[in-house]
Amino acid sequence: MPTRQRAHFINSLSGFKSANLIGTQDVNGQTNLAIFSSVVHLGASPALVGFIMRPDNNDRHTLDNISMSKQYTINQVSADFYEKAHQTSARYPREKSEFDEVGLSTFHLDSINAPFVKESRLKYAVTLKEILPIPLNNTLFVIGEITDVICDQEVIENDGYIDIESLQTVSVSGLDSYHTSQRLSRLSYAKPNINPHEINDKLK
Amino acid sequence: MPTRQRAHFINSLSGFKSANLIGTQDVNGQTNLAIFSSVVHLGASPALVGFIMRPDNNDRHTLDNISMSKQYTINQVSADFYEKAHQTSARYPREKSEFDEVGLSTFHLDSINAPFVKESRLKYAVTLKEILPIPLNNTLFVIGEITDVICDQEVIENDGYIDIESLQTVSVSGLDSYHTSQRLSRLSYAKPNINPHEINDKLK
Repeated sequence: MPTRQRAHFINSLSGFKSANLIGTQDVNGQTNLAIFSSVVHLGASPALVGFIMRPDNNDRHTLDNISMSKQYTINQVSADFYEKAHQTSARYPREKSEFDEVGLSTFHLDSINAPFVKESRLKYAVTLKEILPIPLNNTLFVIGEITDVICDQEVIENDGYIDIESLQTVSVSGLDSYHTSQRLSRLSYAKPNINPHEINDKLK
Repeated sequence: MPTRQRAHFINSLSGFKSANLIGTQDVNGQTNLAIFSSVVHLGASPALVGFIMRPDNNDRHTLDNISMSKQYTINQVSADFYEKAHQTSARYPREKSEFDEVGLSTFHLDSINAPFVKESRLKYAVTLKEILPIPLNNTLFVIGEITDVICDQEVIENDGYIDIESLQTVSVSGLDSYHTSQRLSRLSYAKPNINPHEINDKLK
């Protein structure tokens, strides 16, 4: 397969992917924003999250900022700004901020050395813990600990589950397809020889 | 937060996750099937895919089989069998096959030392390349190379993109919520100062 066709094909195989904007800044406060579809949950305690980065391309600005500041934000992409989120993947020069270029707004917390996306309805600050090299294809697995979560209280259900569908959080398939979701159901914790039942632990 | 509540909460933060069944077998041909929501695309050339595993729990059988056979299958979960897929997360004893217990069927290719899920409409064989330990929380990042893909030809678009929405592939949010999708659009490759447009590279 030609390179581009192969990229579309192989990128489709893993299934639906998360859509997140990662916000960073350099020592001079120059902000950067980039979309990633590889953010993955690593564990709840400690609260760890990882993502894959290619140091040889556009991700470079994000990597340099994270390496220096040790902090970044992860911001879920929702249906009302997914086109702007996609546009952050264009190759802007280092001195341009993708926030300005695509028309998204920064939001800051005093204690966090990285910009949040104001428009994102579920976002969190992360402190870098480790960068694991993957020599097989020269990528990096960047792992951080979640320190501060910003989310509307009313979408957090009684058991802790966050109804990200109600936030219109999107998913990605392949390289460039964006999707909203339609819940089939939440299923009870699986036990041998008992069929799972639908659970409903709705909002307070 | 109490442990279980915290698990629901933190698991919701990464966004929508892929839903995949990983099929393995031991040297005696005893099959195992387990659902994972952490399968992530690593690169197209070589075609690499990774997933996170906790060696201290139910994942143990999958890990032991992969370590021995060096092969496994990844099978996308679709809406018509997501409850059965969820049920594979129950703690069955090693001598039981989840295929039998939850009511899914095996499918074999001669060259592959691992069972596919017959009901899955997009599945592939993977050869183990590396297991990267993540000491931060005692998990493993299992990386493999995709060798054989089984997929209906008619959902592969001209540019290589696979229309996984038309396969009714589901996504997961949190620990236990399953979702179908609704495409917003595919967007063109982003370039500075040009708004992305919708692309349509429909089926042959």
